[in-house]
Amino acid sequence: MNDSKRLEVGAGFVRLDAAMADDLSVVNSARVSFAQESLEMSQKEVGLIRFLMRERHGTPFEHNAFRFHVKCPIFVAREWFRHRIGSFNEFSARYSEMPNEFYVPEPADVRTQTGKPGAYTFEPVNEKLAAETVEMIRSSSEKAYEVYAHLVERGVAKELARVVLPVGMFTQFYWTVNARSLMNFLSLRTHDTAQKDIREYANAVLELARPVMPITFDAWEDCGRQTP
Amino acid sequence: MNDSKRLEVGAGFVRLDAAMADDLSVVNSARVSFAQESLEMSQKEVGLIRFLMRERHGTPFEHNAFRFHVKCPIFVAREWFRHRIGSFNEFSARYSEMPNEFYVPEPADVRTQTGKPGAYTFEPVNEKLAAETVEMIRSSSEKAYEVYAHLVERGVAKELARVVLPVGMFTQFYWTVNARSLMNFLSLRTHDTAQKDIREYANAVLELARPVMPITFDAWEDCGRQTP
Amino acid sequence: MNDSKRLEVGAGFVRLDAAMADDLSVVNSARVSFAQESLEMSQKEVGLIRFLMRERHGTPFEHNAFRFHVKCPIFVAREWFRHRIGSFNEFSARYSEMPNEFYVPEPADVRTQTGKPGAYTFEPVNEKLAAETVEMIRSSSEKAYEVYAHLVERGVAKELARVVLPVGMFTQFYWTVNARSLMNFLSLRTHDTAQKDIREYANAVLELARPVMPITFDAWEDCGRQTP
Amino acid sequence: MNDSKRLEVGAGFVRLDAAMADDLSVVNSARVSFAQESLEMSQKEVGLIRFLMRERHGTPFEHNAFRFHVKCPIFVAREWFRHRIGSFNEFSARYSEMPNEFYVPEPADVRTQTGKPGAYTFEPVNEKLAAETVEMIRSSSEKAYEVYAHLVERGVAKELARVVLPVGMFTQFYWTVNARSLMNFLSLRTHDTAQKDIREYANAVLELARPVMPITFDAWEDCGRQTP
Repeated sequence: MNDSKRLEVGAGFVRLDAAMADDLSVVNSARVSFAQESLEMSQKEVGLIRFLMRERHGTPFEHNAFRFHVKCPIFVAREWFRHRIGSFNEFSARYSEMPNEFYVPEPADVRTQTGKPGAYTFEPVNEKLAAETVEMIRSSSEKAYEVYAHLVERGVAKELARVVLPVGMFTQFYWTVNARSLMNFLSLRTHDTAQKDIREYANAVLELARPVMPITFDAWEDCGRQTP
Repeated sequence: MNDSKRLEVGAGFVRLDAAMADDLSVVNSARVSFAQESLEMSQKEVGLIRFLMRERHGTPFEHNAFRFHVKCPIFVAREWFRHRIGSFNEFSARYSEMPNEFYVPEPADVRTQTGKPGAYTFEPVNEKLAAETVEMIRSSSEKAYEVYAHLVERGVAKELARVVLPVGMFTQFYWTVNARSLMNFLSLRTHDTAQKDIREYANAVLELARPVMPITFDAWEDCGRQTP
Repeated sequence: MNDSKRLEVGAGFVRLDAAMADDLSVVNSARVSFAQESLEMSQKEVGLIRFLMRERHGTPFEHNAFRFHVKCPIFVAREWFRHRIGSFNEFSARYSEMPNEFYVPEPADVRTQTGKPGAYTFEPVNEKLAAETVEMIRSSSEKAYEVYAHLVERGVAKELARVVLPVGMFTQFYWTVNARSLMNFLSLRTHDTAQKDIREYANAVLELARPVMPITFDAWEDCGRQTP
Repeated sequence: MNDSKRLEVGAGFVRLDAAMADDLSVVNSARVSFAQESLEMSQKEVGLIRFLMRERHGTPFEHNAFRFHVKCPIFVAREWFRHRIGSFNEFSARYSEMPNEFYVPEPADVRTQTGKPGAYTFEPVNEKLAAETVEMIRSSSEKAYEVYAHLVERGVAKELARVVLPVGMFTQFYWTVNARSLMNFLSLRTHDTAQKDIREYANAVLELARPVMPITFDAWEDCGRQTP
């Protein structure tokens, strides 16, 4: 474990467990088209990466891998797992007792939603409603967990008792993904229209991945964060 | 909508919305290896399908598609969505208010778990605990829903209010999958070691798919339900 | 076999063998987000498809399938098979003797290449060179086939004898693909920068698929043929 | 480039360019089910890997990556590229002039094929036929290359001139793949029924990958080389 590569996100975290990735691998998997190889990044190599990104020649960005260990609420994980190009292994609430950890928003995060699908905007609510919401979420989740713990203690199978647990419960998983699929994830999940909560995780993922392939992620930014 | 192709599973359902599938397509996509084509199923074609299944030549089973519409609890959907070869679109609790529908087990379904990971067995519990469990699950889910409904009514964004909702809440989704990936799903999810709840859905899927490709599914049974 | 759905492309063809696809399936797999369903296409449904395409919400375009039967030269098939989201079964030159059919360009197709990678342009050559090229390609391919046929006749394994056959030899395959992956294929392979030969096959694919999902393909055109 | 990780296969090669892989990553991505982690491989960890392999719990084998650089004949590459779970970038005969390198069998490799599809066997041929075959393959390939070189020299576009080149021509590519997909490739391509030529490449891939995850590949052997 390399804890220097771990970022806290609320009560969860994103940890970069391992990577096989550098900008040069993008260059060399592209250059095999010409039976050529570069030994180091120079201005020409930077230009090639920017060209590939701009023209959306995506395959050379696939020859690398990032392995992340993530702890986040189930409702965040559910959006994450929709990304099919990559590998997941997750905590099992069939095999293990879920720990008593659930998502509670900060008062400043309590928001109201206006607008239509595809064009929602979110506004903060007044302090009183914010405080009440925080309290109700905490209290409701605690009560649900008590029921769960009680049922498990009485001998009810964990896989059945869990049905009362809220989607705010924390889960954890390993996720392995290549840079092209990662940029697709980041394009969608760092975007304004993504839910604030997964956006914070996606930003942490980006912060950890970016130094590993700096030229690639710069090019991605400069192309408006489009998936190559 | 073809409601004759809909099976109820508890308070949920599986509906076969459309299919492009027949046994002959398996034969002809295999026979293209020889630039040959069959116009109908005879004993020789049956034999070919059985050979392909037995030898795990899987690709000819991919040239078809089944589109299902499913309503099931979130904890079942979460297992379902782990199957990456296929397409999903799901109800959005960010865009829509979740209806007040949640999973409550039958008393006979309340079970205890014994054994080790990989070799669990489940036994029924006594009547009193069964009744209590049913009641606690119902009551806990109802209370959580009340909190959700209250928060939504007060103006809290649906995407935030939902965090208190239990994983027993019903969701719905479209799922499109080819027969090879479908058999992989069925191998794992109709198996004894699968959770009873997803097993019931998987059995419904099988009941709907089987008549569409009868020779294929017979061969699959006879090969011990292994993925081709 | 439905030969009305077959288009000749040079000495090859594209045949739409079957489809489970219509515009309404796009609408309804998107509408499941709201637990809603449309029974027919009206202006509102058209608008939804155009919105999905424009905003690149791609998943609702996946709940359908097209099964094509294609005959084309190996060098075209090699580009085709790079598209990983889809299913292929191909003629086997290990199992079957390859027929004596190979690609010969029309004189008007003989071209010269100028410019740099990523910005090539092609110009016709003079009549004499065009005629010579056609003749040399024909003659070289014929001679190679004679060697192949001779070796096979002498008893050399087909899988070994084939190594002399040119990439212009015709092969055939079944290809099953959903509309999202199909539009990705068409975006790349109907594009100016694609090789003329695969472009002609891609145009035939488009001509066969388009009437099956007319609103979808209109929206795709209007969005500059970008992959949703 | 790490040439110590390069194996020659005939006139081609397999080179392990990079890996993010070890047995411990399999253990830890499986153990996340229990929110547990192992810091090193002991007997218990070995047992877990063997259990996962035997029971075909395949996902924990996906959290790693191997990047290979391969040079092989086109007819071998064509079989290789059928494996869709992985990433490829290949030499482009549209952009670059193909070098004059083609496959010629050793006399001892010249074989005849007997039996039926699915149960072929191969026998050596007599010395005279073997020698003649080698000579005819060499000569036919040389002549085809001369036509190609002549057309390119005259100004015909490389993408067109290449149609005369035999499938025995050497190409090269980068291939990145996880251990689960790699074992699927190896199951099929090191098998007796695979063509001898790709079998030799698959054996080289195995020889390079095996020391990186020795427990995993031992377990795979002991389970009859089945895909987990």
